[in-house]
Amino acid sequence: MRVEELDTPAVIVDRDLLESNIRSMSAYCAGHGIRLRPHTKTHKIPAIARMQVASGACGITVAKLGEAEVMAHAGLENILIAYPIIGPVKTERLARLAAECTITVALDSGIAAEGISHAMADVGSQVNVLVEFDVGLRRCGAQSVAAVVALARQIERLPGVCFQGILFYPAHIWDSPQQQASALGELSQKIQAVIAALRSASLDCAVVSGGSTPTARNSHLVRDLTEIRAGTYVFNDLNEASVGACKLADCALRVVVTVVSTAVEGRVIIDGGSKTFSGDRLLSGNHQHFGYVTERPDLKFVSMSEEHGHLDLECGARNLVVGDRLTIIPNHVCACVNLHDQIFYHRQGVVEGCWKVEGRGRIQ
Amino acid sequence: MRVEELDTPAVIVDRDLLESNIRSMSAYCAGHGIRLRPHTKTHKIPAIARMQVASGACGITVAKLGEAEVMAHAGLENILIAYPIIGPVKTERLARLAAECTITVALDSGIAAEGISHAMADVGSQVNVLVEFDVGLRRCGAQSVAAVVALARQIERLPGVCFQGILFYPAHIWDSPQQQASALGELSQKIQAVIAALRSASLDCAVVSGGSTPTARNSHLVRDLTEIRAGTYVFNDLNEASVGACKLADCALRVVVTVVSTAVEGRVIIDGGSKTFSGDRLLSGNHQHFGYVTERPDLKFVSMSEEHGHLDLECGARNLVVGDRLTIIPNHVCACVNLHDQIFYHRQGVVEGCWKVEGRGRIQ
Repeated sequence: MRVEELDTPAVIVDRDLLESNIRSMSAYCAGHGIRLRPHTKTHKIPAIARMQVASGACGITVAKLGEAEVMAHAGLENILIAYPIIGPVKTERLARLAAECTITVALDSGIAAEGISHAMADVGSQVNVLVEFDVGLRRCGAQSVAAVVALARQIERLPGVCFQGILFYPAHIWDSPQQQASALGELSQKIQAVIAALRSASLDCAVVSGGSTPTARNSHLVRDLTEIRAGTYVFNDLNEASVGACKLADCALRVVVTVVSTAVEGRVIIDGGSKTFSGDRLLSGNHQHFGYVTERPDLKFVSMSEEHGHLDLECGARNLVVGDRLTIIPNHVCACVNLHDQIFYHRQGVVEGCWKVEGRGRIQ
Repeated sequence: MRVEELDTPAVIVDRDLLESNIRSMSAYCAGHGIRLRPHTKTHKIPAIARMQVASGACGITVAKLGEAEVMAHAGLENILIAYPIIGPVKTERLARLAAECTITVALDSGIAAEGISHAMADVGSQVNVLVEFDVGLRRCGAQSVAAVVALARQIERLPGVCFQGILFYPAHIWDSPQQQASALGELSQKIQAVIAALRSASLDCAVVSGGSTPTARNSHLVRDLTEIRAGTYVFNDLNEASVGACKLADCALRVVVTVVSTAVEGRVIIDGGSKTFSGDRLLSGNHQHFGYVTERPDLKFVSMSEEHGHLDLECGARNLVVGDRLTIIPNHVCACVNLHDQIFYHRQGVVEGCWKVEGRGRIQ
């Protein structure tokens, strides 16, 4: 079957591009002696996680415990849950999972550390812990060097939890890769200060985990970084392309849609809206558009309702007719994939199969 | 089990409120002699659709063919697909479905009508057709009275498709119910003109299908309306409450979350973000907030990432600690439910069961 024969809307992945994206990031990391622990929240598909590991990834990152369970049961090992695991229901599940494979969790509070330690002690299991340090996003993360050291000390005293190092997420840096040097230099100094303080307190900081796709290929500018958790790079999307973190041609995932109405002058309606693409706006540049129409860049994806995409034609442009198909690069691929039960993969237009998005819906 | 024992994030529905919302809309419609054909895109759950039908709904509305299949296979009959069905793969499925139960489709093009007619003729099946008329949203719908008449005439000549009337969607009217009289008066005149023109052309307009929750309880202001397709009213949400279409206390669906980080001063991070609530902004009023925190209205849900909700504390407010639980009314309940595989229902806090969101992911 060819891509043209798939009913729409359909999410398709160019497998050649996917493999090239995976190889390229692995090569960058290998070249700089940095481990790659890709964030699989982007795809939530064990088969793609295995491709990443086969290409050199040291393990994987997930956002939620439920995603970790899906990946572990599919045979993935060495999983970082980059999220605080809170409450007895989750810590008990975590303890069971940690008995099966190597699990690391990130956290930023004594309450989280104590809850996990308690559950681990109950089953005689052990989990690695990274203390999250806030480098500017103001989301999670200890706010000072002293807070990191205090929490690391507390973890060292608790049973069942093993302090391994620090984790940060530089998602506040959303400049083009060419313009990141100063922000990453500043970041590097912050990280150095944390490492030095931990060393002074006789705490071994074996892991310094950073990452995010926009900054990934400048990771060598952050001294003593041991691993990155880039995720979006497997598919790329319009957000990444807009800041120059990839080219449009590197976007491996696209959504095929059909024109369902041309009744309104100057407008074309497609069969995908916020329940197909997500309603996420672009993070930089023109925040008003919802995707890039590859065959017709003159069409502006100006708004959406749940099942309708609204494309505006430039004055005088050749119109489309009901039934025409278009291929769109989404703004934010992680949110898009999360809406779908399956995505198709192809090589040069020949559909080879489809992957179930196995981690989707595992929000707890 | 009580709601307090559910792991988070969890979507919960107060069944007493749900039943009250269903009864109240049914009573309004019955009182005004208007049929109610609720849009089930809001919940995508056959059990709730059956409650609506048991309460007097004449049938149901769905957004996609896949949703119609789910509802039909669950025993729902008399289904309106308020969406143009385009392409041979879908029209063949439609013909098979129309052989099983009464199906009506909305469309606004001759291409759509011809495609459906062709597929119906192949299997000797028949489908009812409503011509969509654009009353101001500029999405789908014939743009003039003449265009409606021309398309209705074309449908009358085609086999397998039976012209039944018109459909419109007044989603551009987003005023409070108290301020809709003038907009609905104007709308009523437009609809009268269409009906008169159809009558002059000897075309019987048996169905005039309108609707949307914000305008639903003013439907009697639109003359000759025969049915409405309100959907959100079953649960309600912050969008509806913000325009006065419901009270906050009428919001039957809420999301229970847990505080996972309080590391950043003045900020509380919860375990639900855009993959739990959807990233949809409010349609009116303060567009910056992502939900209403029922226990702590002083907390502003200011931003979100995929799995994190960012709540800001007002200066001097009592802080929360990691592990605290909060209950949030989402901005847009249809987009929220669509992210979840299941939602729990309770009465006065006692969890009675959970519904699978069976129509979710049926995007084709």
